[in-house]
Amino acid sequence: MSTKKLWGGRFQQQASKWVDEFGASISFDQQLADEDIEGSLAHVKMLGYTKILDAQDVDQIVNGLEALREELHEGKLHFTVENEDIHMNIEALLTEKIGPVAGKLHTARSRNDQVATDFHLYLKNRLPKIIDEITTLQKTLVSMASQNVETVMPGYTHLQHAQPISYGHYLMAYYQMLKRDKERFKFNMTHTDMMPLGAAALAGTTFPIDREYTAKELGFGQIYANSLDAVSDRDFALEFLSNSSILMLHLSRFCEEISMWVSHEFKYLELSDAYTTGSSIMPQKKNPDMAELIRGKSGRVYGHLMALLATMKSLPLAYNKDLQEDKEGVFDTVKTLLPSLKVFNGMIKTARPNVERMKRATENDFSNATELADYLAAKGVPFREAHGIVGQLVLKGLQTHQNLQDMSLADLQQASPKIEADVYHDLKSEVAVERRHSLGGTGFDQVKKQIEQAKKELGD
Amino acid sequence: MSTKKLWGGRFQQQASKWVDEFGASISFDQQLADEDIEGSLAHVKMLGYTKILDAQDVDQIVNGLEALREELHEGKLHFTVENEDIHMNIEALLTEKIGPVAGKLHTARSRNDQVATDFHLYLKNRLPKIIDEITTLQKTLVSMASQNVETVMPGYTHLQHAQPISYGHYLMAYYQMLKRDKERFKFNMTHTDMMPLGAAALAGTTFPIDREYTAKELGFGQIYANSLDAVSDRDFALEFLSNSSILMLHLSRFCEEISMWVSHEFKYLELSDAYTTGSSIMPQKKNPDMAELIRGKSGRVYGHLMALLATMKSLPLAYNKDLQEDKEGVFDTVKTLLPSLKVFNGMIKTARPNVERMKRATENDFSNATELADYLAAKGVPFREAHGIVGQLVLKGLQTHQNLQDMSLADLQQASPKIEADVYHDLKSEVAVERRHSLGGTGFDQVKKQIEQAKKELGD
Amino acid sequence: MSTKKLWGGRFQQQASKWVDEFGASISFDQQLADEDIEGSLAHVKMLGYTKILDAQDVDQIVNGLEALREELHEGKLHFTVENEDIHMNIEALLTEKIGPVAGKLHTARSRNDQVATDFHLYLKNRLPKIIDEITTLQKTLVSMASQNVETVMPGYTHLQHAQPISYGHYLMAYYQMLKRDKERFKFNMTHTDMMPLGAAALAGTTFPIDREYTAKELGFGQIYANSLDAVSDRDFALEFLSNSSILMLHLSRFCEEISMWVSHEFKYLELSDAYTTGSSIMPQKKNPDMAELIRGKSGRVYGHLMALLATMKSLPLAYNKDLQEDKEGVFDTVKTLLPSLKVFNGMIKTARPNVERMKRATENDFSNATELADYLAAKGVPFREAHGIVGQLVLKGLQTHQNLQDMSLADLQQASPKIEADVYHDLKSEVAVERRHSLGGTGFDQVKKQIEQAKKELGD
Amino acid sequence: MSTKKLWGGRFQQQASKWVDEFGASISFDQQLADEDIEGSLAHVKMLGYTKILDAQDVDQIVNGLEALREELHEGKLHFTVENEDIHMNIEALLTEKIGPVAGKLHTARSRNDQVATDFHLYLKNRLPKIIDEITTLQKTLVSMASQNVETVMPGYTHLQHAQPISYGHYLMAYYQMLKRDKERFKFNMTHTDMMPLGAAALAGTTFPIDREYTAKELGFGQIYANSLDAVSDRDFALEFLSNSSILMLHLSRFCEEISMWVSHEFKYLELSDAYTTGSSIMPQKKNPDMAELIRGKSGRVYGHLMALLATMKSLPLAYNKDLQEDKEGVFDTVKTLLPSLKVFNGMIKTARPNVERMKRATENDFSNATELADYLAAKGVPFREAHGIVGQLVLKGLQTHQNLQDMSLADLQQASPKIEADVYHDLKSEVAVERRHSLGGTGFDQVKKQIEQAKKELGD
Repeated sequence: MSTKKLWGGRFQQQASKWVDEFGASISFDQQLADEDIEGSLAHVKMLGYTKILDAQDVDQIVNGLEALREELHEGKLHFTVENEDIHMNIEALLTEKIGPVAGKLHTARSRNDQVATDFHLYLKNRLPKIIDEITTLQKTLVSMASQNVETVMPGYTHLQHAQPISYGHYLMAYYQMLKRDKERFKFNMTHTDMMPLGAAALAGTTFPIDREYTAKELGFGQIYANSLDAVSDRDFALEFLSNSSILMLHLSRFCEEISMWVSHEFKYLELSDAYTTGSSIMPQKKNPDMAELIRGKSGRVYGHLMALLATMKSLPLAYNKDLQEDKEGVFDTVKTLLPSLKVFNGMIKTARPNVERMKRATENDFSNATELADYLAAKGVPFREAHGIVGQLVLKGLQTHQNLQDMSLADLQQASPKIEADVYHDLKSEVAVERRHSLGGTGFDQVKKQIEQAKKELGD
Repeated sequence: MSTKKLWGGRFQQQASKWVDEFGASISFDQQLADEDIEGSLAHVKMLGYTKILDAQDVDQIVNGLEALREELHEGKLHFTVENEDIHMNIEALLTEKIGPVAGKLHTARSRNDQVATDFHLYLKNRLPKIIDEITTLQKTLVSMASQNVETVMPGYTHLQHAQPISYGHYLMAYYQMLKRDKERFKFNMTHTDMMPLGAAALAGTTFPIDREYTAKELGFGQIYANSLDAVSDRDFALEFLSNSSILMLHLSRFCEEISMWVSHEFKYLELSDAYTTGSSIMPQKKNPDMAELIRGKSGRVYGHLMALLATMKSLPLAYNKDLQEDKEGVFDTVKTLLPSLKVFNGMIKTARPNVERMKRATENDFSNATELADYLAAKGVPFREAHGIVGQLVLKGLQTHQNLQDMSLADLQQASPKIEADVYHDLKSEVAVERRHSLGGTGFDQVKKQIEQAKKELGD
Repeated sequence: MSTKKLWGGRFQQQASKWVDEFGASISFDQQLADEDIEGSLAHVKMLGYTKILDAQDVDQIVNGLEALREELHEGKLHFTVENEDIHMNIEALLTEKIGPVAGKLHTARSRNDQVATDFHLYLKNRLPKIIDEITTLQKTLVSMASQNVETVMPGYTHLQHAQPISYGHYLMAYYQMLKRDKERFKFNMTHTDMMPLGAAALAGTTFPIDREYTAKELGFGQIYANSLDAVSDRDFALEFLSNSSILMLHLSRFCEEISMWVSHEFKYLELSDAYTTGSSIMPQKKNPDMAELIRGKSGRVYGHLMALLATMKSLPLAYNKDLQEDKEGVFDTVKTLLPSLKVFNGMIKTARPNVERMKRATENDFSNATELADYLAAKGVPFREAHGIVGQLVLKGLQTHQNLQDMSLADLQQASPKIEADVYHDLKSEVAVERRHSLGGTGFDQVKKQIEQAKKELGD
Repeated sequence: MSTKKLWGGRFQQQASKWVDEFGASISFDQQLADEDIEGSLAHVKMLGYTKILDAQDVDQIVNGLEALREELHEGKLHFTVENEDIHMNIEALLTEKIGPVAGKLHTARSRNDQVATDFHLYLKNRLPKIIDEITTLQKTLVSMASQNVETVMPGYTHLQHAQPISYGHYLMAYYQMLKRDKERFKFNMTHTDMMPLGAAALAGTTFPIDREYTAKELGFGQIYANSLDAVSDRDFALEFLSNSSILMLHLSRFCEEISMWVSHEFKYLELSDAYTTGSSIMPQKKNPDMAELIRGKSGRVYGHLMALLATMKSLPLAYNKDLQEDKEGVFDTVKTLLPSLKVFNGMIKTARPNVERMKRATENDFSNATELADYLAAKGVPFREAHGIVGQLVLKGLQTHQNLQDMSLADLQQASPKIEADVYHDLKSEVAVERRHSLGGTGFDQVKKQIEQAKKELGD
């Protein structure tokens, strides 16, 4: 049999231990212990400020909470399943410490607004850390891009050589994705930085509380305008899981490419030993485990998003116990994102591009075919026609094992008399890259501009 | 055998018709026909402005495209699977109309940046419509709330009577959710209002294009800074599906409640015949079909979100054919959201609340128990203790079939001598509601303030 | 710096501790410790049986493993992140215990087939437990149904009173769902009861191993026929997550109804105090927390399904580190299902139906309208016409506040002269239920037949 | 205003056209027209057989339905939104054709059991087609494998060369996955081949219907034992979507590999022109579009699964309008699976492996490192030690640009004196493959056995 519950007045029978365990959230919501104490401190100070409690009671409670906080940081607090959740645990510990006056702390408050406040505080504290890790990774990419503006590699569509590009340009594509990720997490702050406290169970309270005071104490920028909404809303968590899914999607794309770039067939990249692992059976293996693991973890974060969307579907207002399921997915996502970003950053920072091999890969293929089509189009051949002429030349080249730059001028002119000797210049891959001067293109000058702009954005 | 493909130069064998059909997107991307022509018009004008094409060619192409647009609006354009997608279809129709000069339109452009541009334009045009429908619904809610500030009903947590609330307050909770929905869709515009055009296949182009000119023509606020990113990015679509999922989640909660409010057991609400349907077998049935259907459609939108997240996971840059799967879910979501919002608005607007029944429901329960606990707390009893006292009274009341307000003062004082005759005032449900003056609470004055603020936000 | 890795021969640099931590799986795959030792024991015995290892080595290893198993059960084994995963941890502990001969255990085996084997064993051991818990719940339902064959309650469609039904019939509907759930978990066993061991890294081995010997040792019914498939396949886990999602969906429907049945408005059911909880602020609350929590946990399980589907999408053969993400969701699902079923069983078993109230609810509504339409149809009025006649009567009844059975015969006959005095018998709700004799219908005899059949299926 | 509804008796006001459109399902459920007529024919014959209707009425209705069926097949039936769904449309068309006697068809039936029956029939008819397409693909794989038993290629883990394998073995891995897919779809038939008809609205009927007669007419193997379950259950659809998700997952893995195999870097496979497409801008491109599209479509099917799981969560019994959302995802999945399988089959069947290149890829790497470790282990070196020795040799080889087989015996012996001249035989990749005789291994004899077994399973 469990101990008497704090809410047990009207109950005649108690739950079995294993039922309690099923219902309890203390196993995971103890991660909110700091936020819970922080919220209680602000609440009780407000109760004093508004004279709802007298100064002496407030002092006792404040001292008790601060002592508990210290013990928490020293790892000395012990939580129990009997006390269900972090809120009841803290209250029970406080009662142990300062006696029944602890019971006054819950005046004009409910666990409904309390847990929502803790959860907002939790995410409010984590979002900046995630944004910081993204920024660190962006800086790494910009720095690597600076060193690789003129590193030429094949650009792919459909995993086929499409057109040669700058490796710096490639890296900056991910910079842009991360930039949007940051914007999303910053926007996420708008709905996270809102205080539910004071909504009480669902309807507000008859006590003359001062929510603006509490909000200021806790550093909240906004206050929920409707008490029902305050305790029922988890939009901020859904936004977070959605933003995190998109971020992980971006990393999964990068990781997929890394896993190919380091393969025997591509060998564009060599990862540091420190970010790879071996095989228990095959002594030669050097596996890009970290890239694969981060890629795999995208599924995990998607799952958390889908879980919360499903859980909250069709839930009537206001609080329902289903909402207890809101936290674990968010906690796990935070614990997935932070190291994923950090490990990815270390991995990419220490990876060496195989510049020679990348370059060579652009020279034994037909990825300069667009150059020839554009060359013809620039001489007045409608693009569609030019495209067809070059397609025929490619087909011939495949049969004779010649790339376009290897064909004789006579052969080229047979396809179109508009082709002249200067075509060989255009067919060089570094020229092809260099000449893509269009805004946002892979031309070296454009890549440099992107890098300049990025440095400005990063405040460097 | 299919007709010769526009890209068919290097190919010796053609696909079977059923393979073509599998690969073709024209069955759904014809919804982008308007945007495709719009994009092409801007592109060709830019080609003229930058002298990449001469004026005569540009005029011919512009006239041809405008003629096609007219035919499109008259429902006269016929698309074919042989031409795969909307881009090739429009180009083929243009060639039919103006001859080979049509081939010049595709100078300095690829289907990769073209389809991304069409898709951005499509959503850029739809987001304001969705925001408008949300605003319409918000106005309905505010207007209904204004008329129901003092309509008292049970407030629920765990679907149990918790505390009495104002029906107006209840309606305003959904106003708040919709407010956040709007903010999300507005933020969504940031990453939608970005132009990929000019990124060409993936690397930009050697032609001296002017993307700022095109962006201005098309009304885009931003231009993708990196060509690889421009053709690979679908963040704006993912944001849209995520925002839509959250919006549908909100509607699903409201619909769930409506489905209960109209049940024989609750009877808080009567829907208009115009938003209900009957049964083919049970003549008495009046089913809240619309509410159920909207609730059910939340799953559909979740599915589209999950589909695109899964499809894009681990995709290498830049364009891959997998991305063709990006559009149908977004189109269907738009087609789900707009009527869902419109139907919901009509349904709620014409629903009659059963004010008497709502009120009565707050009087034969124990939802004033918090009042009594607060009453005691205000008299200095620690809240926990007060909670326990009232819990015991509730238990007794359940056994004697008395609500708190029905108990004699003597009985109440037996539980706590601090209880006096004025308690009966506090126990009235309208008093309980009225007294919840705390910011954002259900107190009538607070509800009025919320409504004022909402009207300001809506610009009324 | 971490300790030297078992696979570290070709590596010059080691990972940082935090990178190791990110990559390590020991924090969760230690749940496979028992299965890992079991698999190793079978493997080494086979190595002895086939003379790949000599008897002395085998004895040493067997003794070592058995000692470790004992220590494991006594809670004495300590695992470290440096040793990455459960396999390397066990091998390291074995080496500590018996020296370098431990290194011979990994002959003709890889972690790839080892972890797959552990995972199969894990689920093979859990499926019967889940099936048992379902059976327990089925028995409870059958027993409750037996006692409630003639308990009449409203049957709902669209949450509107549709036709009166037997409460026993209602309970048996869930019996049927659970029956299918069991069939699915039993089918799930087919692909779980397959042994990957012997597939080695991906290609089998040159050692003359005997997989049939190992399979017999481990009690596996089937052996993977293809080594690449053996190490890459997680179908059995996906099936499990899908089956679990459907099971939780069924429970979510039941819980949703329970949450309504116990509401103030319905009051069809009273839950035992032992399966409800109170509120920290509202002393009167008795919340069906367990029902809500189980309902909420359906989302959690959906999320795990989606996570694994996403993670495995587009993964090339054979093993990739992404697959390390396969386990936590399955472990958590097992830990969700078992108590959910157990708690649900306890909750429903101890719930008291409010038989009187259920009955009364069928008498003050129009749920006997179908009876009247059927009455007319049986007298030769085309059903559609009969439906229309009754619809009009319902409309009139709503206006005059009369149910059908309250209308005078004259009034009824005005609607259709075919109506005679015997109609009042048919309009009684218990008659309406009793008369639904069609196979599988709610007629009392049919419900009894279902119960008989169920008892046979349950072997009672 | 819409036309008078068939269920409109009690309604005073009608829905607007756009509300009707939102609620109507005829736009998609017309795909059930055949099944709907089939079900009605069986139902009315049963009504005749049981004398519920007289023979003349039955004849009229049967003739009317058969005439409608003919018109349907001739494409002459026109459905309208006013009649909401396929059931009401068919009934309205029947009434047009044979007059009010058509109204008798709906005796003892509801749309609830009718739509469930249609849906079961629909899937019952499609499952065998899907199983057939899988079988066709399996036969292709077995035939290709037969021709490639001794084609040696690199086997991958972590996309790194792991050990050489047989290409035939690789193909047979997918055969095994498809085998499980078929088993799942066959199991799926168990819960699809169950007839809901006769459950009526939710409770069965008072008419003396004979469900066994109807089931026999419709070819159903089982009859739902509980009427509430019959109209509420969609397990068969969820199973189908889950099975389809796993099938698409398998295809996505194969497609991912094909997309790599055809890349410039791998060039292991050449696809037929008939299953590739070109680029609108890059004349050289030959894109594996079909592989990418099938891979992308896996996300689509996942989405449908998630959608239905979410939609059905927490739905109270029995029928709710939310369930109308059950069909589109299933229809679309059928339309995705059948061509995906067919196109994939054509694509793989016409693809040419580059046998020489695959072979060569196994000779300039270290994928024979395991051979050397096994060689040492077979000579009594504990496997862990052998692994370490070979790891060091690999490291040296990487520095001196020598593969293991290129090192002198002296160099090898310096690493371990146990190495002798016969090692060079073991280091050959075809020997490495050939020697993996273990059951299910890649050894040529084992691959042949797998193929024999597969042929037996396929009945060839």
